[in-house]
Formats: sequence, C-alpha cells, structure tokens
Amino acid sequence: MDYTEKLRAFPMLENIPREDLAALSTLLREERFPAGKDILSEGAQGNEMYLLTEGSVDVIKATVFGDSFVVTTLDDRSHSVFGEMALIDPDRRSSTVRAKTDCRTLVISRESFDRFCEEHPRCGVRMLRMISIHLVRNIRRENENLKQVYQALIEEIEAG
Amino acid sequence: MDYTEKLRAFPMLENIPREDLAALSTLLREERFPAGKDILSEGAQGNEMYLLTEGSVDVIKATVFGDSFVVTTLDDRSHSVFGEMALIDPDRRSSTVRAKTDCRTLVISRESFDRFCEEHPRCGVRMLRMISIHLVRNIRRENENLKQVYQALIEEIEAG
Repeated sequence: MDYTEKLRAFPMLENIPREDLAALSTLLREERFPAGKDILSEGAQGNEMYLLTEGSVDVIKATVFGDSFVVTTLDDRSHSVFGEMALIDPDRRSSTVRAKTDCRTLVISRESFDRFCEEHPRCGVRMLRMISIHLVRNIRRENENLKQVYQALIEEIEAG
Repeated sequence: MDYTEKLRAFPMLENIPREDLAALSTLLREERFPAGKDILSEGAQGNEMYLLTEGSVDVIKATVFGDSFVVTTLDDRSHSVFGEMALIDPDRRSSTVRAKTDCRTLVISRESFDRFCEEHPRCGVRMLRMISIHLVRNIRRENENLKQVYQALIEEIEAG
C-alpha cells in the first residue's frame, strides 16, 4: 500500500519531500482497532510509533491508587501520533492508549525508523527534530502540571 | 580553538566520527562563569545548549510560592549538557542553572546546530537521537515525580 498521501497531512512529517514520504510509506503497516480496544498498554514494553489516520483515542494514565484518568483525547482531524518515545528509547509505555471509536493507524517500528534515518539522513534530521519538539512540549506541559499539583499539595498541608 | 578532544568525552556525542567532532568544534565558543553566577535563568529566553567542561552547577527551579529548590547538581565528571531544549524549540528556560564552582562551558547556538545538521546530516541524526533520549528520560522522570506529588496530595486530602 502507498500511504504517501495520508502521510502528507501529518504535521510531524511536514518539510519531508514527497519522494522520501514514499520511501517512509514502504516501512509502515496499517493496523485497525475496534472501539474499546487498548492500542498501547501503560507499563508494557513497546517499540512502535502510531499515526492515527481514522477515529479517536483516549490517552489514559493509572494513578498510584489503582484508578485511572483520561489525560487527553486525540482524533484524526489533528493528525496525531502516539507512542513516539518508543522510537527513541525503548522502555515501558508511559500511558495506555484506548480506541474510543473504531480506529485505523499506520505503525512504524524503531528498527524501520532507524533504517529510514540511516538511508535518508536529511529527512531523519527533520523527523527527529519534529519528534523532539513534541517531546520538549510534553516536558514543558508536565512541568506546569507538576507545579500545579505541588501548589495544591502545599495549600492542602497549610489548610490541614 | 580546537575542542575536539574535550567533545569526545561527552556521552551525547558518542558515535560521532572524529572529523565531524572537529567540524562541530568550530561552531562552539567557550564561556567561563565564576562560582555563584547564573548561567541560565528560569523564564528567560534562550537558544543555546551548554556542555560543562569544568566545575559543577546547580539546576534550580522556582516554586509557585516564590521560593526555589535545587533539582540536581551536575559536574564535569558526568560530562553533562544543559539547555538542550532550546536547541530544539526556543522558548523560556525551564530552570535556572547556577555555577556552584568556577565553571567552563562550551556553548552552541540553535543556528549553529541547525547548520551542522544541514551540513552533516548523518551526525545530525545521531546528535538529535542522543538529545531525544535525554528528553525522553526527562519525561519519564517527570512522570514519576508527578505521580509521587499527586499521591502525597491525595493522602493529605484524605488525612485532612
């Protein structure tokens, strides 16, 4: 399958020339998930990034008390990606991602991504830069969250 | 100045061939800071990454209450870098970095880094990958911190 046209819509791939998107396309496979299905499971090992091409997903985190909450919802209109940390540094998934509706995704493994960067280093630089921007913004958001929860904790201690 | 030998010690630059380190070296400038001096200031705009070649620094964050705390201390034995988010996505600095002893650093600007990636894309891929690993580990650490502070908050509310 040629996914080049679908790839063009993703902000993470902007500035990648069409012929390189075609090369990237050959490294992808499509995966479908029915509504309610976990695409990623927090704590599980993973080494793949997903591009959401159809449907919407909930990003869910467990708390230390065993319950969980929806951090955010992504849908195909935002041309979102998830699981991108596993392309960089394979480790346990930091969140669960659950199909909220029936979903289609394009999936790329770390091995394929490494090969793409090796063979198309200029595009590798651009993709890694976009992934890094994503990561940096994630860190800044987490910093803000941490400050807010910390503030609430101190206020609670002082009120108590 | 040729900083190639100094650069070889930095884990972030492992796998970069010697000749490319020499090219990178030409884009760096050395900056010295006396003990007590702020190298970066939280909230200030910045577009440079620092490699710590001599001395040690405190990484400091302000709380919402106007006080601050030392997040971590870095020293030259660990061949640490800081300010790397500004190479990726220029925005306000997320921490203050203060010289704990007299320090020497090598400094690279985003413009120079972009040019290096353009001219040496294979090395750009390797450097961006190392920076990304750094970012991902930062996110995972922040996730853990957030969970712990959240847990403390809930326990405080329940005890109250």
